[in-house]
Amino acid sequence: MEKGRLETFVDGVLAIAITLLVLDLRVPAADESLGSALLRQWPAFLAYATSFLSIGIIWVNHHRIFALIEHTTAGFLMINVLFLLVVGFLPYPTAVVAEHLQSPDQAVALLLYGGTMVLVALMFNAMWEYARRRRLLRPDLDALALRPASRSYRLGPLVYVAITAVALVAPTLGLALFALTAVYWLLPGSTPTA
Amino acid sequence: MEKGRLETFVDGVLAIAITLLVLDLRVPAADESLGSALLRQWPAFLAYATSFLSIGIIWVNHHRIFALIEHTTAGFLMINVLFLLVVGFLPYPTAVVAEHLQSPDQAVALLLYGGTMVLVALMFNAMWEYARRRRLLRPDLDALALRPASRSYRLGPLVYVAITAVALVAPTLGLALFALTAVYWLLPGSTPTA
Amino acid sequence: MEKGRLETFVDGVLAIAITLLVLDLRVPAADESLGSALLRQWPAFLAYATSFLSIGIIWVNHHRIFALIEHTTAGFLMINVLFLLVVGFLPYPTAVVAEHLQSPDQAVALLLYGGTMVLVALMFNAMWEYARRRRLLRPDLDALALRPASRSYRLGPLVYVAITAVALVAPTLGLALFALTAVYWLLPGSTPTA
Amino acid sequence: MEKGRLETFVDGVLAIAITLLVLDLRVPAADESLGSALLRQWPAFLAYATSFLSIGIIWVNHHRIFALIEHTTAGFLMINVLFLLVVGFLPYPTAVVAEHLQSPDQAVALLLYGGTMVLVALMFNAMWEYARRRRLLRPDLDALALRPASRSYRLGPLVYVAITAVALVAPTLGLALFALTAVYWLLPGSTPTA
Repeated sequence: MEKGRLETFVDGVLAIAITLLVLDLRVPAADESLGSALLRQWPAFLAYATSFLSIGIIWVNHHRIFALIEHTTAGFLMINVLFLLVVGFLPYPTAVVAEHLQSPDQAVALLLYGGTMVLVALMFNAMWEYARRRRLLRPDLDALALRPASRSYRLGPLVYVAITAVALVAPTLGLALFALTAVYWLLPGSTPTA
Repeated sequence: MEKGRLETFVDGVLAIAITLLVLDLRVPAADESLGSALLRQWPAFLAYATSFLSIGIIWVNHHRIFALIEHTTAGFLMINVLFLLVVGFLPYPTAVVAEHLQSPDQAVALLLYGGTMVLVALMFNAMWEYARRRRLLRPDLDALALRPASRSYRLGPLVYVAITAVALVAPTLGLALFALTAVYWLLPGSTPTA
Repeated sequence: MEKGRLETFVDGVLAIAITLLVLDLRVPAADESLGSALLRQWPAFLAYATSFLSIGIIWVNHHRIFALIEHTTAGFLMINVLFLLVVGFLPYPTAVVAEHLQSPDQAVALLLYGGTMVLVALMFNAMWEYARRRRLLRPDLDALALRPASRSYRLGPLVYVAITAVALVAPTLGLALFALTAVYWLLPGSTPTA
Repeated sequence: MEKGRLETFVDGVLAIAITLLVLDLRVPAADESLGSALLRQWPAFLAYATSFLSIGIIWVNHHRIFALIEHTTAGFLMINVLFLLVVGFLPYPTAVVAEHLQSPDQAVALLLYGGTMVLVALMFNAMWEYARRRRLLRPDLDALALRPASRSYRLGPLVYVAITAVALVAPTLGLALFALTAVYWLLPGSTPTA
């Protein structure tokens, strides 16, 4: 089973999910005062940027893993479909957070958002561990050299659980932390590469 | 006519159809109680997962067939466009099931959903049989070795007719069976490969 | 300027436009009678199929032209962007026809739909003529051998003008004729290839 | 890090953003007078064409830059994600302008639209300067030969600031100028290539 077509499919779903995020932004009606309506909608813009950067870093990391992979199997294909099932869901919690960041149920919204991010990070680790243990990686790679990357990926779900905990108490701070984490991971040198 | 560009187009349509499914999930308004609104919406989440996994398995199987194909013809192109017409329609019955799984017309919704799945499976078989009979497959393939795959594909429409029949009596069970079938087919080894 | 990236971009826009068509189909609300609501919506389903097949044949023909092209220029790029501007607009007249096929303004809706189809066919001819006259085609192609294809493409706008004229008097028949034309052109052998 | 997958991802996001623009066009309801409703909606059609052509020229220019690039780095990947964050946002100001071009808040709408265009042009320059200074370009390129292209790209943000200033006073003229600028840049020979 060739790796190229899987890569194209994953890239396609990620590109679409990241671009669909803009549809969650509500256009103020012609009879609303535009300036104040846009300002009142800042949670939606923050949620857009946060999810955009998060899917961006997911794409970068998927790209990194696939550069190390030599071949794929039916099981690996299945894990990738489940991974996409969770990532493709992300526009929904984003829209829920945009609508509810200032409603009384903001904690529920952030729990849904953070929970989805934790799931994405867990699926990402499942994909990486599967590739590593089932020997789908290039044979010239040194097992020792892969350890820093493994450790860094394993940190992901823990970081997202911690931010979700913060978000339940301070929703806006939590959402900003999700964005800052993505920006930090996008910085060159922040993630060890094998 | 080269096979690569057809493959890219099919992958594109499948990637978009699978990612558009998330747009069917309704965002509860700011003045609704978010927690209970999300729980009440479980049919929409179940429909999302079912259709996501089903399009996922359609993609995996299309991938499998195309790995065996050597060249394409104008007729094969046409069958693929008709195949995409049916698969690209799937987000609609998904949205209908999400809205009507608990309405008095749940049977009608499941009939539309199941009927579309049967059509998808029939079109898939048409594509496979056309490729096999018009000798579009790689010449080194053994006709005998293709039989298990053919038999397995032919089972698809029958399985979907059976699940649709169940769904008319027990809609939620039917929907769950569609999801389980996709999960089962995603499992490594469940489908014979040529 | 390489032809591959232009091809990918065109394929992407066509794949997205064809898949977005499904979003025009209205989901009957939970308190509507589903069966009769679906039946009443037949114009939307007919419009979906017609536009899906039409974009399908546009994709097939674009594919055919590009197989003959050797290199591209800045001007050819521009014509392709204008071509996509018109094709990417098609989901809108489709939605308008779906909504107005049974309203008193059905003729206006069909005029918008037919007019867009005529524009698509004109842009397609502009692209083909530009490629032919500016010598972007493969040098081994015989100018005489290209004539049947040119003649067949030139027929396109005329056919669409004729169907639009029929549609102004008999809207449903007109819409069906657009669908039948696409099906006919999808049939192997209906279009001469160079 | 290979340049091909980044190119595919950027092309995917641009193709989706350009095709999503059509979703901003409101379909008049069956009980509205279609002809006059369509005519009243001309700002939406103008905004559609303007943004379509603008994303088109962004794609053409991205294409031009990438033809000169030899390799990518983690930092370049990050800049591209931020570039896409701004370009992928464009359908939103487009929809806002369509709704508010004739409302009392038209200046606010055009400020949002123009500001986004300025940001896009700035990110584009950041990408180009990063590639040029970090020596990501092909080593055979002459530094002197790149100057006209650099100068032309640097003009972009200034042109967009000027048009935005016009648009605050004369919104429709401003929007038309954005469209004309894109058409001008699409003309062969208008942009120096290295």
